Amino acid sequence: MKQMIGIDIGGTTIKLALIDSLGNIQKKWQIPTNVEENGRFIPQEIVATIQANVLGKDELAPDIAGIGIGVPGPISPDGNFVVQAVNLGWSEMPLKSVVEKVLSIPVTLLNDANAAALGEMWKGAAKGKQNLVFVTLGTGVGGGIIIDSKVINGVHSSGGEIGHIAVTSDETRICGCGNINCLETFSSANGMVRTMKKLLSEAGEVRGDFTTVDIFKWLDAGDYLAILTLDITVSYLGQAIAGIMNTIDAEEVVIGGGLSEAGSALLEPLKAKIDQHIFPQIRGKYMVSQAKLGNDAGIYGAVYSYLSTQTN
Amino acid sequence: MKQMIGIDIGGTTIKLALIDSLGNIQKKWQIPTNVEENGRFIPQEIVATIQANVLGKDELAPDIAGIGIGVPGPISPDGNFVVQAVNLGWSEMPLKSVVEKVLSIPVTLLNDANAAALGEMWKGAAKGKQNLVFVTLGTGVGGGIIIDSKVINGVHSSGGEIGHIAVTSDETRICGCGNINCLETFSSANGMVRTMKKLLSEAGEVRGDFTTVDIFKWLDAGDYLAILTLDITVSYLGQAIAGIMNTIDAEEVVIGGGLSEAGSALLEPLKAKIDQHIFPQIRGKYMVSQAKLGNDAGIYGAVYSYLSTQTN
Repeated sequence: MKQMIGIDIGGTTIKLALIDSLGNIQKKWQIPTNVEENGRFIPQEIVATIQANVLGKDELAPDIAGIGIGVPGPISPDGNFVVQAVNLGWSEMPLKSVVEKVLSIPVTLLNDANAAALGEMWKGAAKGKQNLVFVTLGTGVGGGIIIDSKVINGVHSSGGEIGHIAVTSDETRICGCGNINCLETFSSANGMVRTMKKLLSEAGEVRGDFTTVDIFKWLDAGDYLAILTLDITVSYLGQAIAGIMNTIDAEEVVIGGGLSEAGSALLEPLKAKIDQHIFPQIRGKYMVSQAKLGNDAGIYGAVYSYLSTQTN
Repeated sequence: MKQMIGIDIGGTTIKLALIDSLGNIQKKWQIPTNVEENGRFIPQEIVATIQANVLGKDELAPDIAGIGIGVPGPISPDGNFVVQAVNLGWSEMPLKSVVEKVLSIPVTLLNDANAAALGEMWKGAAKGKQNLVFVTLGTGVGGGIIIDSKVINGVHSSGGEIGHIAVTSDETRICGCGNINCLETFSSANGMVRTMKKLLSEAGEVRGDFTTVDIFKWLDAGDYLAILTLDITVSYLGQAIAGIMNTIDAEEVVIGGGLSEAGSALLEPLKAKIDQHIFPQIRGKYMVSQAKLGNDAGIYGAVYSYLSTQTN
């Protein structure tokens, strides 16, 4: 059976896996991300760890058909280089040609949120679906839009940048992108903590440092400010997701990222908010589900992305 | 050269044209839309007018390769029937098979906003582009999303229903779809008139009946309430369009419909609003333009839709 390598480059670790064309992981390992000197050693360290862990030198080494690499940044529309990856220090990095030249194995690049979206479609929460909105709620809000099994990368490599959909608020929150009141300033894990802090401060309460895990614990205990915080978080997110659904009309919304681990405490009110704003013809006919693959979504999706270049 | 027939079914007239594969209109005519008995005579009247005007009985009659029909309602995902067309009285109308059976010519159905979007891409404002957001501002707000030259019809035939993206407002406006504060309750021609009326009423002013044409005249004359009305109209629209662009990242936004005839008085402030909320990586790299084909967009797009089924 065909074997592929899926890679997910993160800011601190690079995850790699040997995966067959049915999606079975044969081997999985990781190396630290070396961000020294603007991450210039990363490509050769990826090549080296593949040679050491998979290709080896003996005749039992598997024949690798292709490599898919998910990267924390936009990929050029031609698929040849990473436009920018702030966390790695990369700018215009020709990752595809560098790896292909040394290993003589075809490489497919894609954005990490898009990789996770494809992974969830291939092997996770949206298995068997072909049209989905994938939303990842972590430090920021990321997204991957899949239509007819293909990721929408966009003309300027900005497809799926749904964390930067503007929301309307009396507050002014400046986003890392430079815009004002992007969705992720309210509905990411960071945004949720910020909302809770604001409510606490307005109520004259002090609770020290906390994370979204604490907020969900307080919520469970019936804490009013935690209930309000979740409502604000989910209202913005639900309205934005409904807007996306009214535009592309997918089958399923998959919620991933750290915040999704809250499960139904998050997903149920979110579904209710989406339902409130979704076009009546879609209401009741789509799913909202929790991502299933966790940190493995990216390596699955990277391999799927390589495979899909082969069948087109 | 191949000849096709493009048809645009509206609530009062049905427009038809004989068009060659280069997009030249050879002949154009129209018939009234017969909505009697839930529009049940429309299919046979379309067949009859094609037979009378194009097929004729002599040997000079052109050989028609295909027919494209734009319909004011959603088309089933398999492309075989019109799910519903409220203005015509249709529900589950098998228009494709009815016309094909009588004329023995292949028929392609599509939604009218989608047809107009394809028309503008083929022969109008977005000529040569493959990724666009088409927005029509009339009685309501309609849309057509095109990615890689293909219209996103959606899993529940609701792709491009951007008029029903919810906006945030202190007001409560009930939309025809049943939802609250849909974009079209604010940013359609009707919505704009409603906003102006509200502002006038709040100011204790009475100006009798008026349309958006009057509002743009008052605007030209520096009328404060008209300026405010345009600002509200354009703010909601610009924020919603920026959200769509951040999701699918297209090359061009084409604005059509009656309201678009205001030209730069509408388009310039709209572009500024979109720019305010668009993802920085897209800003400065996309166009906002006025639709060019007017009422002919639908017949062009219907033919283009037929042609694209032939090349895939």
